[in-house]
Amino acid sequence: MSVEIYWGSGSPFAWRVLLAAEVKGVPYTSHLLSFQARDHKAPAFLAINPRGKVPVLKDGDRVVTESMAIMHHLDAIGGGPSLFGTTADERTAVWEWSSRILYDLEEAVDAFTRPLIFAKPGSNPGEAAMAALPRLQAELAGFEAVLADRKWLCDGDAPSAADLAAFPFLMNIGRAVGKDAARGLELPFTPLSAHYPNLAAWQARIEALPGYERTYPPHWREG
Amino acid sequence: MSVEIYWGSGSPFAWRVLLAAEVKGVPYTSHLLSFQARDHKAPAFLAINPRGKVPVLKDGDRVVTESMAIMHHLDAIGGGPSLFGTTADERTAVWEWSSRILYDLEEAVDAFTRPLIFAKPGSNPGEAAMAALPRLQAELAGFEAVLADRKWLCDGDAPSAADLAAFPFLMNIGRAVGKDAARGLELPFTPLSAHYPNLAAWQARIEALPGYERTYPPHWREG
Repeated sequence: MSVEIYWGSGSPFAWRVLLAAEVKGVPYTSHLLSFQARDHKAPAFLAINPRGKVPVLKDGDRVVTESMAIMHHLDAIGGGPSLFGTTADERTAVWEWSSRILYDLEEAVDAFTRPLIFAKPGSNPGEAAMAALPRLQAELAGFEAVLADRKWLCDGDAPSAADLAAFPFLMNIGRAVGKDAARGLELPFTPLSAHYPNLAAWQARIEALPGYERTYPPHWREG
Repeated sequence: MSVEIYWGSGSPFAWRVLLAAEVKGVPYTSHLLSFQARDHKAPAFLAINPRGKVPVLKDGDRVVTESMAIMHHLDAIGGGPSLFGTTADERTAVWEWSSRILYDLEEAVDAFTRPLIFAKPGSNPGEAAMAALPRLQAELAGFEAVLADRKWLCDGDAPSAADLAAFPFLMNIGRAVGKDAARGLELPFTPLSAHYPNLAAWQARIEALPGYERTYPPHWREG
């Protein structure tokens, strides 16, 4: 019996879970919820997750919420190298990098991308994005530096949960930069390879993972 | 050789690490940094953690940053029951509850406590705290509910990393409520046992852990 994954298009938390399912070769039944239709706040979904958040995984009777926990479950039931490490030191490294992502990278990315992606009439999205830029650059510099001499954040031969957790946020930067609200701004991200060559190479490694195309946010393909 | 822990008084991230060291019976050399003196931004400390954040653990040559990762390291080298679980399901549960804490509880607590604890002249700390109250109550209700039929968040016989991670934030609520800026506010926290009996009992279980007194923020004893 395959597991069921409830997710929303463009949610970085959902995307990291889909990446984990693909990397671990776990077959899943996909339930794509519409944020616009507020499917995630509808009674049918609240019966599964009363907190009204995606992603959610169902594996038989077991319901797992929170993206990192879902990835951990997929890691346990799937094949191939572990996403969370096998030795204690490896697992500590996954906690360390995941914490940097959860505490710092996510906020730094959101502060920059949200004004551009969800630009409201009458607001000054460019100003808000530029104000958030230094902090984002500082975070990215840390990732760029560590990727100078390793392929993956936790220095293994295969991607860890930390890599898959960070990736959708990095992709959000590219998406924000392509928005109308970003026109005319001088942004140090295009092309990424010119400004952050190690991050760009790492991003390409994730895009080359088998099954990657199936995880790409459907509504991003529409523009 | 004992490990070294760099920490700051009152940092919830540092507190959870000290709790882990005590619960796991790991002897440590304590380096108490002064936030006021900006020890954490001084060259001596930046040489250990260039990001200028506590807590930090040093174990020989290995430097571990990020509180959850440090707890994981202490768990691996210490004795007694595992803080992060032994089965895959237990470890998934620790990720799930830790994520709820990192993503939701911490922000909900900070939004309520910071205005009261760091009240600025000319600000209206009571208004800011009251505005943050509904969200905090919603978060606490989730913890209160799950603790109705279990002793610890992840349903084991011993505290998990999630319990120790959440505890300092709960304590911050009590501290904020006792501040001058909270006088006259109608706050549903005093005594905690009247409003959140399960949380109060859980808090008392943590306070009864061996070594607890050594983890209590020194400057809190001064008022």
